Amino acid sequence: MTEQIVTPWEVSGEGEIDYDRLIKDFGSNRISNELIARIESAIGTKAHPWLKRGIFFSERDMNQILASYEKGEPFYVYTGRGPSSEALHLGHMIPFTFTKWLQDAFGCIVVIQLTDDEKFLWKDLKFDEARRFALENAKDIIACGFSPERTFIFRDTDYIHTMYPNIIKIARLTTTSTARAVFGFTNSDNIGKHVFPAIQAAPSFASTFPKIFGTTDETVLRKIRCLIPCAIDQDPYFRVTRDIAKRMKYPKPSLLHAQFLPSLHGAGSKMSASVGGTSIFMTDSKKQIKKKINKYAFSGGRATVEEQRELGADLKVDVPFHYLCYFLHDDVELERIRKDYSEGRMLTGEVKAILIKILQDLVMEHQEKRKDVTDKDVELFMTPRYMEVYEKKSEPIATVEETREGKE
Amino acid sequence: MTEQIVTPWEVSGEGEIDYDRLIKDFGSNRISNELIARIESAIGTKAHPWLKRGIFFSERDMNQILASYEKGEPFYVYTGRGPSSEALHLGHMIPFTFTKWLQDAFGCIVVIQLTDDEKFLWKDLKFDEARRFALENAKDIIACGFSPERTFIFRDTDYIHTMYPNIIKIARLTTTSTARAVFGFTNSDNIGKHVFPAIQAAPSFASTFPKIFGTTDETVLRKIRCLIPCAIDQDPYFRVTRDIAKRMKYPKPSLLHAQFLPSLHGAGSKMSASVGGTSIFMTDSKKQIKKKINKYAFSGGRATVEEQRELGADLKVDVPFHYLCYFLHDDVELERIRKDYSEGRMLTGEVKAILIKILQDLVMEHQEKRKDVTDKDVELFMTPRYMEVYEKKSEPIATVEETREGKE
Repeated sequence: MTEQIVTPWEVSGEGEIDYDRLIKDFGSNRISNELIARIESAIGTKAHPWLKRGIFFSERDMNQILASYEKGEPFYVYTGRGPSSEALHLGHMIPFTFTKWLQDAFGCIVVIQLTDDEKFLWKDLKFDEARRFALENAKDIIACGFSPERTFIFRDTDYIHTMYPNIIKIARLTTTSTARAVFGFTNSDNIGKHVFPAIQAAPSFASTFPKIFGTTDETVLRKIRCLIPCAIDQDPYFRVTRDIAKRMKYPKPSLLHAQFLPSLHGAGSKMSASVGGTSIFMTDSKKQIKKKINKYAFSGGRATVEEQRELGADLKVDVPFHYLCYFLHDDVELERIRKDYSEGRMLTGEVKAILIKILQDLVMEHQEKRKDVTDKDVELFMTPRYMEVYEKKSEPIATVEETREGKE
Repeated sequence: MTEQIVTPWEVSGEGEIDYDRLIKDFGSNRISNELIARIESAIGTKAHPWLKRGIFFSERDMNQILASYEKGEPFYVYTGRGPSSEALHLGHMIPFTFTKWLQDAFGCIVVIQLTDDEKFLWKDLKFDEARRFALENAKDIIACGFSPERTFIFRDTDYIHTMYPNIIKIARLTTTSTARAVFGFTNSDNIGKHVFPAIQAAPSFASTFPKIFGTTDETVLRKIRCLIPCAIDQDPYFRVTRDIAKRMKYPKPSLLHAQFLPSLHGAGSKMSASVGGTSIFMTDSKKQIKKKINKYAFSGGRATVEEQRELGADLKVDVPFHYLCYFLHDDVELERIRKDYSEGRMLTGEVKAILIKILQDLVMEHQEKRKDVTDKDVELFMTPRYMEVYEKKSEPIATVEETREGKE
């Protein structure tokens, strides 16, 4: 059995990551075709290709979210980012792109936590630097097209006061043994790290957002479910959160887990901002994208044209094809490439050329949209404010007047 | 050697507390007559009787505070309370009474931390209960007569946002080993406790109070010294804080340590709100005070009048006389009682009668003053606002206009 480590801070292994084993180790469920069908039936449209292609592959209690939604009961989506760098790479975009789709599909509220405090506690970053990165990252997130009416983005260092009641309630219920068993903290870790799991857990409970939901009434807030789309490495945080939810008298948050977008070097790693030449950044130029893909993207193609024509590419290790599974949304075209490339009718260069074009378009389009994000937009998205739980699908749970009186 | 335990959560020992040993164990300094003389010379008036009588008995770097003051350089006083109960007892009043004297003597700013989060993390208290206790305690503190122009009282749960940058900076510099060595935390303690030392440390640095000092400029704030009067059991927090100060590029906070007001049962314990019948509360009636002193105050007097006349009282264990050293400020009268009581010319009943009168007056006066504290007063004291560092003694370090612009 290969050695594989998947924690919020480290993803490594020999060869590719065994996602089946992660499901078993973490105790989650594989996303089934039945579940995808139920999602499609609930939203009245097709599921996102990342669900159908198994990129979002694992879940916890997604049926509970669908049951709530079908009854017109409220739920919201919570995701986040640790702002360790100014620029995002392609891998960082996965949860946001998917969350934006969820918002469109369900018309639901989205809250996005920027854990600038976490990055300050873990990395060799200055306090103001972590805060600045968070603000820059917020612009990229807004550029994904989230609804200004139903999206709240917050830095922990800005929003700590409103989160604090839930943070210390969660902290009181979490022993250091639990935190150490789940996250591997030791005596040489700083005391801030030990409490951080409570800070990442807090947004899983609707009472962390009294202004968003327009009430401080716990009996109302306890009925609002939370859905968390995230990469599978974040699951440990939410396993702890789910254990605590019951004791907080809150519903357990539901989860949708994504696989990691591999680095250009290939499987068994996730794209990382700190390893140079292995990532495509959302700030890269067309030329840089072309160069990186051509130079670094690990190919499953054969050594010579002749061999490739005869044997075809090994798609399991081929990074360009893997990326196409993420970013080429046309199922027919993807299937054609899969067949032609694996059966030797396409060469790596041709597949890379297709990928380069797709990524160039995606990144350039993102850069255009990001340029259009104004300071006023950032201020709006980052202001706690009342939101209707669903777009025209249910009654607001509180009136605007009640909200204004709501203490935060 | 007697077994003696002095931590922020436990004070116990066989027989009386050995304060000389505490000075040695903690590595602080006994307050010398020279230091008292220098204080008197700086403030141009007599030192508080609790300094002269050795009730405030130990210190760290008090000379640094005096040197700053003599040069007209800024310092402020920081003290606090853990709001574990609605009513304060006599022992709780010691640091506040003394701090009020410091404020009068030096004309300095005082900040008072109410650690409602600590009590929530440690005790079987509801979140809102801890917050309510803190508010009730604030009224008692205001009733001590602090200057509304130069006193800021805050609950952690209200002020966390402004404290947070310093909290996580301190937390990053504190390993769990250190916290465990100093405070004895174990794996079964909740994760919130582990981070709390950073929360109690934060107010030791002037940057925790940008609005009070009217600036966010660290080069200015780093010049403002902090003096902490507290009971000696709080010293572990500030030993850690002093170690960290250097790495934060801040002056180490100075300290003045008080002995514990013993419970009515006698030496080797401190007055505790949670042990019934051993404490005099600031809410007690005249009748209750009389009854408690007469019934519970441990006497060093002899078994019979005859023996007392012959041998005199053992003042070392006599609680009524011990209390008089705290609350009878007339040195001549105290000396007369000391002599007469220890030499058998006074009986315990007479000494108790004097003490009862003094405490009844003190408690009744406090209750009167507390009644006069309005909600508006509480709001004022608990609002972060610009203050001049000394009363007419130095130039303000920032103008009011700058303050209004100051971000907090």
